[in-house]
Amino acid sequence: MDRTARRTENRYGNRPTMKDVAARAGVGLKTVSRVVNGEPGVTPDTERRVQEAIAALGFRRNDSARVLRKGRTASIGLVLEDLADPFYGPLSRAVEEVARAHGALLINGSSAEDPDREQELVLALCARRVDGLVVIPAGDDHRYLEPEIAAGVATVFVDRPAGRIDADVVLSDSFGGARDGVAHLIAGGHRRIGFIGDQPRIHTAAERLRGYRAAMEDAGIPVDERWMSLGVTDPERVRRAAEEMLKGQEPVTAIFAGNNRVTVTVVRVLAELDRRVALVGFDDIELGDLLQPGVTVVAQDAAQLGRTAAERLFRQLDGATLLPERIELPTRLIQRGSGELPPA
Amino acid sequence: MDRTARRTENRYGNRPTMKDVAARAGVGLKTVSRVVNGEPGVTPDTERRVQEAIAALGFRRNDSARVLRKGRTASIGLVLEDLADPFYGPLSRAVEEVARAHGALLINGSSAEDPDREQELVLALCARRVDGLVVIPAGDDHRYLEPEIAAGVATVFVDRPAGRIDADVVLSDSFGGARDGVAHLIAGGHRRIGFIGDQPRIHTAAERLRGYRAAMEDAGIPVDERWMSLGVTDPERVRRAAEEMLKGQEPVTAIFAGNNRVTVTVVRVLAELDRRVALVGFDDIELGDLLQPGVTVVAQDAAQLGRTAAERLFRQLDGATLLPERIELPTRLIQRGSGELPPA
Repeated sequence: MDRTARRTENRYGNRPTMKDVAARAGVGLKTVSRVVNGEPGVTPDTERRVQEAIAALGFRRNDSARVLRKGRTASIGLVLEDLADPFYGPLSRAVEEVARAHGALLINGSSAEDPDREQELVLALCARRVDGLVVIPAGDDHRYLEPEIAAGVATVFVDRPAGRIDADVVLSDSFGGARDGVAHLIAGGHRRIGFIGDQPRIHTAAERLRGYRAAMEDAGIPVDERWMSLGVTDPERVRRAAEEMLKGQEPVTAIFAGNNRVTVTVVRVLAELDRRVALVGFDDIELGDLLQPGVTVVAQDAAQLGRTAAERLFRQLDGATLLPERIELPTRLIQRGSGELPPA
Repeated sequence: MDRTARRTENRYGNRPTMKDVAARAGVGLKTVSRVVNGEPGVTPDTERRVQEAIAALGFRRNDSARVLRKGRTASIGLVLEDLADPFYGPLSRAVEEVARAHGALLINGSSAEDPDREQELVLALCARRVDGLVVIPAGDDHRYLEPEIAAGVATVFVDRPAGRIDADVVLSDSFGGARDGVAHLIAGGHRRIGFIGDQPRIHTAAERLRGYRAAMEDAGIPVDERWMSLGVTDPERVRRAAEEMLKGQEPVTAIFAGNNRVTVTVVRVLAELDRRVALVGFDDIELGDLLQPGVTVVAQDAAQLGRTAAERLFRQLDGATLLPERIELPTRLIQRGSGELPPA
């Protein structure tokens, strides 16, 4: 696929329209509309001419365009990986606001972190004629999207990069953020630091683990395998991981939590065990500042991720000449107490 | 519209299919497909016969069905009122799980609490051929949905009832929950109790205010107008409302917060003012049990709301004979400390 060429075209103008069909068939727009929508009032000969023009041009009825002509709006799709993860709330809302500013509707769906469902959902949205897609991918092979992109569907990945295709992506600096957060714990005197993260096949989880390792290596601290636990972030798994690190002769004195779901469970475990263990979490959490101690976090700007991705999408849709780009947003360490507790 | 009659039909079987078109035109299914999709390889005479059958039967290409035939899935739509409200996380996920169990995809969108956007989004989803809709309404007039429902789109409202049409709705007992929560504060010795809620045009907000008034009346406590504040639930408005109630010679000694967004802001205001004011919130909030004091709430089961609504939707889609029903789920008072503080 020649992406450069594709990107120099105006996406909206790329597909043959009913107007093109009408011109080629030598009929009025209303006649084309009647044929396409199976309405009566067209002679067999005219129908044939219209159908030939449709076939010659490769015209496909575009539901979005149809809706638009009726005075309604175009649409973009957003594919999340978990409808219940609060991290995606501000991200989704930001994408929606940008869409609205461009006169487009946003429709969402979730892959539930399953690559097959991601593909199914993306193709279902394409079949429903979204003009563009913002995707938080669950899978790591997005070649299935190539025909859709070639057909003019604008696409931007966010939070995690696309796999095996060259596409725009907007990310937070997961590596740098985790490295800074762990370095902050080391600067506070900790050496036995645990890392609890999401499944390593997930890009952000792998990057944050890499940041943890880098900070430990920079400080010359050999990492004990028992200090690292990666897997699904449901409360049961995270609870077991935290309890495991906190027991024995040489428990960890600090934990770096790989995302908001992990942080919430670790906060709960530490409260129940009544242990003064330092904690830095990746992602901010609601009310984290009002807990005792307040929860120190490496915050990413979820709304800015969504806004940046959506604006990029509409630049594609407006026909801008863009080469696929990787945009990385910085994270921010917010000290609130839990990350500043000294080693026990 | 004769809803009873509609409901005795199988929704899936209601619309003319390509098979019906093929039978009427006396051609094969593949031929109909070619005509509908504007593909070549059909003689003009055959095309004409197919177009006549399409017109006679009122066949409309059904994208869901088309996707389904390609080995993909049917779909249902979910219309929320705020993508960033954590209350909708478990509700959305529950709807998604039921959809998945029925082999259907879920696509979502948000009205952003704007009746016009709700209508625009609902009709856009219908234009994209969803088989059914779960709607958390922003508006109070849903007659615009009547043609869609008549055309076979299954519809269930959740969290708030439909307006001016007769439709299934699944609700929490907002009135009873609020009455119980306020009665709990009264039983703890409070008489000057504030109520901060959402805009009164929103059904749940109005019902919860009614519950507050009922509890006060049951206890023979006259309500001072200054104790009630209704409006948008952004932090600035709620903050001003709380501060207003807490100042002067006779401040409130307890606050009932009308939803999760209000509760979070009131918790923050009380922490900043360092005031021991009792608080009961409608909706549970994450980490509410770990705050000092823990936050007493009237919890609704958001996942159960979503599950019940989606199961009802699929019963409609399966062709069950159902009269429109109002299903009300109970709430649960969870005592954690803030609602048990005595009057200052």
